[in-house]
Amino acid sequence: MARVLLARMLESIGNPAVQFVLWDGTEISPRGAPRQVRIFIHDLGTLLKLLADPALKFGELYAARRIDIQGDLAELLEMVYRALPKNDGVTGKRTRLGAALEARRNSLQRARDNIHHHYDFGNDFYGLWLDSRMIYTCAYFPTPAMGLEDAQVAKMQHVCRKLRLQRGEKVIEAGCGWGALALHMARHHGVSVQAYNISREQMAFARDRARREGLEAQVEFIEDDYRNARGKFDAFVSVGMLEHVGPERYQELGRVIDGVLSEHGRGLIHSIGRDYPRSLDAWTERHIFPAACPPSLSQMMNIFEPCGFSVLDVENLRLHYAKTLEHWLQRFEAAAADVEKMFDATVVRTWRLYLAGSLAAFRAGNMQLFQVVFARSRDNRIPWTRDAP
Amino acid sequence: MARVLLARMLESIGNPAVQFVLWDGTEISPRGAPRQVRIFIHDLGTLLKLLADPALKFGELYAARRIDIQGDLAELLEMVYRALPKNDGVTGKRTRLGAALEARRNSLQRARDNIHHHYDFGNDFYGLWLDSRMIYTCAYFPTPAMGLEDAQVAKMQHVCRKLRLQRGEKVIEAGCGWGALALHMARHHGVSVQAYNISREQMAFARDRARREGLEAQVEFIEDDYRNARGKFDAFVSVGMLEHVGPERYQELGRVIDGVLSEHGRGLIHSIGRDYPRSLDAWTERHIFPAACPPSLSQMMNIFEPCGFSVLDVENLRLHYAKTLEHWLQRFEAAAADVEKMFDATVVRTWRLYLAGSLAAFRAGNMQLFQVVFARSRDNRIPWTRDAP
Repeated sequence: MARVLLARMLESIGNPAVQFVLWDGTEISPRGAPRQVRIFIHDLGTLLKLLADPALKFGELYAARRIDIQGDLAELLEMVYRALPKNDGVTGKRTRLGAALEARRNSLQRARDNIHHHYDFGNDFYGLWLDSRMIYTCAYFPTPAMGLEDAQVAKMQHVCRKLRLQRGEKVIEAGCGWGALALHMARHHGVSVQAYNISREQMAFARDRARREGLEAQVEFIEDDYRNARGKFDAFVSVGMLEHVGPERYQELGRVIDGVLSEHGRGLIHSIGRDYPRSLDAWTERHIFPAACPPSLSQMMNIFEPCGFSVLDVENLRLHYAKTLEHWLQRFEAAAADVEKMFDATVVRTWRLYLAGSLAAFRAGNMQLFQVVFARSRDNRIPWTRDAP
Repeated sequence: MARVLLARMLESIGNPAVQFVLWDGTEISPRGAPRQVRIFIHDLGTLLKLLADPALKFGELYAARRIDIQGDLAELLEMVYRALPKNDGVTGKRTRLGAALEARRNSLQRARDNIHHHYDFGNDFYGLWLDSRMIYTCAYFPTPAMGLEDAQVAKMQHVCRKLRLQRGEKVIEAGCGWGALALHMARHHGVSVQAYNISREQMAFARDRARREGLEAQVEFIEDDYRNARGKFDAFVSVGMLEHVGPERYQELGRVIDGVLSEHGRGLIHSIGRDYPRSLDAWTERHIFPAACPPSLSQMMNIFEPCGFSVLDVENLRLHYAKTLEHWLQRFEAAAADVEKMFDATVVRTWRLYLAGSLAAFRAGNMQLFQVVFARSRDNRIPWTRDAP
C-alpha cells in the first residue's frame, strides 16, 4: 500500500530516481536510483503527510526529523528538480498560492513584515556562514576556484564596471543588505550613495561599519522603503532586492526609478530569476521567504518597458550562484553546532535544506541569476561595446 | 489657416522643432528649430494629405516630390523621433493596423509573399550599396572608425564566438540572406550548415557563391521556410529574420527551435527590437517591410519561456546599427544615379527616406538591436563567464 502511494506521488513529480526506506525496513528503489542517496521515512503518519502535499511537507518533515536523508542532500534535490516536468505551472497560470501571495505582498507595511521575517534572523547568525563583508547575494567567480571572499569583491567590481561609475556621482541603492556594496562604491569609485533598506538590524550594522571606515559623509544608510526615495541620481543599483518585490509591483518600481534617475543615468538590477513565470515552492515561501517571487525576464521587462527604458545588457550568472551556495553550505555545515546552540536543531535542518535546495535549483536550471543593465531610451552616452572602458 | 493646421499636426506628434516653407513662401519656424533643416511643401493638396495622416503620407509625398527637404534628412527625422511622446502606443494597445498586420502575416504562403516584396528587389540593387558579401543586417564595429567591410566580418565573428562553434558541429540558420554567415561559419569554424531562406533570388546567389568557394559539401542552402526544418543541430542561429515573424508566431518559432536543437545546443537570435511593444510605422509597413514587427524583449521572451529555454545573454547593439546605416546611406547616395537608371526617382527617394529614417530611429532610441543567446534550462555546459574561450 505504502509502495503504491509513494509510486503515485513520485509519478506526480516526474519520477525522480530516488530510493526510499520505510520505518519497517521496506526499500523502494526505482530503476536507475543511485545507491548512495536514500530517503528514510520514519513512520506511517509521516508518509501520509508527505503524500498529501509533498512540496510543502517534505521540508517540514525533514526539519522535524521525521524524514532523514542519507547521502548528499543537494545531489538528491538536484535529481528531483531535474526530473520535474518541463514548465510545471507555466506562464500566466494563476495558482491559489499566487493569489495568496499577491494578497500578502507588498504594501509598505507588509513589505516590512516580510523582510523582517528573513533578514532579522540576526546578524550573528548570518555572520557564522557568510563572507566577512556579510554579502548575502550571488558572488562572481572569474574562475571557479576563486574563494568566496574574493568572489564577493569581484561581484562588486563587476557591478560597478557595468554601472560606469564616475568620481563624484550620486548613486541610489535599493535594498542594500549589510551595506557592503554601498561602502565599496564610495571607497573605490568616489561616489556618494543613498542606500535604502527596511531591515533595522542590517542598517544598524551598516551604519556602524560606515562610521568605522570613515565613510559616513559619503554613504547615507536610510532605514526606509526605496519607494520613498527622492532626488536625482546618476546610477540606480539593486542587488538581490527584486525577489521581494511582487511582479504586480514592477511598474511601480519602474516609475520610482524613472523619478530618481538623471537624464544620463544608468541602472543595474541583479536578481534571482526564472526561465518562465512561476511561484516559489510552497515550503520556501512559507518557511524562508514570505511573499518572495523570482521573476522571469518577461516579467522583469515590466519594470522597463512601460517607462521607456532601454535594456542594454543581460547576463545570466546561474552557475555563479550555485558556486556561491556551495561555499555557504560548506560554511554553514562547519558552523552547524553554533547555529544549534544559537537556536535549535530544527533551525539547522531548515536552513541546511534551504541552502542545499537552492544549490540544487541553480544547478538544475530551476533558478537563474539575471543582471540587467538599462538606461533611458534616448540616451546615446551608452558604452560602444562591452569592452569599452 | 495652413499655419494653424500645421501647428495642430505638429502638436499631435510632440512638437518637433522643424521649419516648414509653404508653396507661397510662408515660413513656419517653431522656437528652437535649427535654420539649416527645412521642409518644403509644394501645394495645398499636399499639405492637406499630410495633415490627414502624417505617419503614412509624409513618406509617400516625399517619394513623389510633393515634399522636399533642405538639410540632413536623418537629422530632421531624428529630431522628429526624439520629440515623439514617450510610449506612443504602449504595451498591449492593439491598433487597427496591428489587427490588419496579424491577418497579413504569416502563414507559409503569406510569409513568401511578404519576403518577396522586399528581398527580391534584385541582387543588383542591393549590390550597389551593401558590402561586398551582401550582408543586410547590423554590423559590429569594435571601434566606430572601422570600415563596413571589416565590421560585417567582425559581426560574424561576434556571433560565432557567442555560439561557441566547434569543428564538425551541425548548425541550422533560419533566414540566411545571401549566405554570408553560413559560408563564414563553414570556412572559419569547420561546421556544416543548413541555411533556410524563402527568397529565390538570394538563394541562387548564395548557392553560386558556395560553389565558387568550394563549400557546397558543407553548406546546404535550402529554399524553404525554416518551419519545415528537420533533424538535430548543435547550434541555431538567426540574424535579421525575427523582424519578419509576427509576435503571435513566437511560440511556434520556439517549438521549431526546441525540435531541432540538441541537448547541449546553443542558440542566437539577432533582431531589430523595441523598448516596448509597438507596431511599425505605417509608411515603412506599407512601402518597405509588409507585415514586419521588431519586438520588445518581453515579446521575444515568448520564444524562449514557454519551451523552457534559458536566456544566457542579451546585448543591445543599437548604436552599431546607426553606424551601419550611416555607411549604407552614404553608399546609397553615391549610387543614387545608378538606382535611378535601374528603377526611377521615386525608388531613389523611397529608399533614401527608409535608410535615413532607420538611421534616425536607431540614433533616437526608437529602434534597438538585440542579440539574445540561449540554451536549454537543464544544460550546465554553458560559458562560465563572458571571457570564457
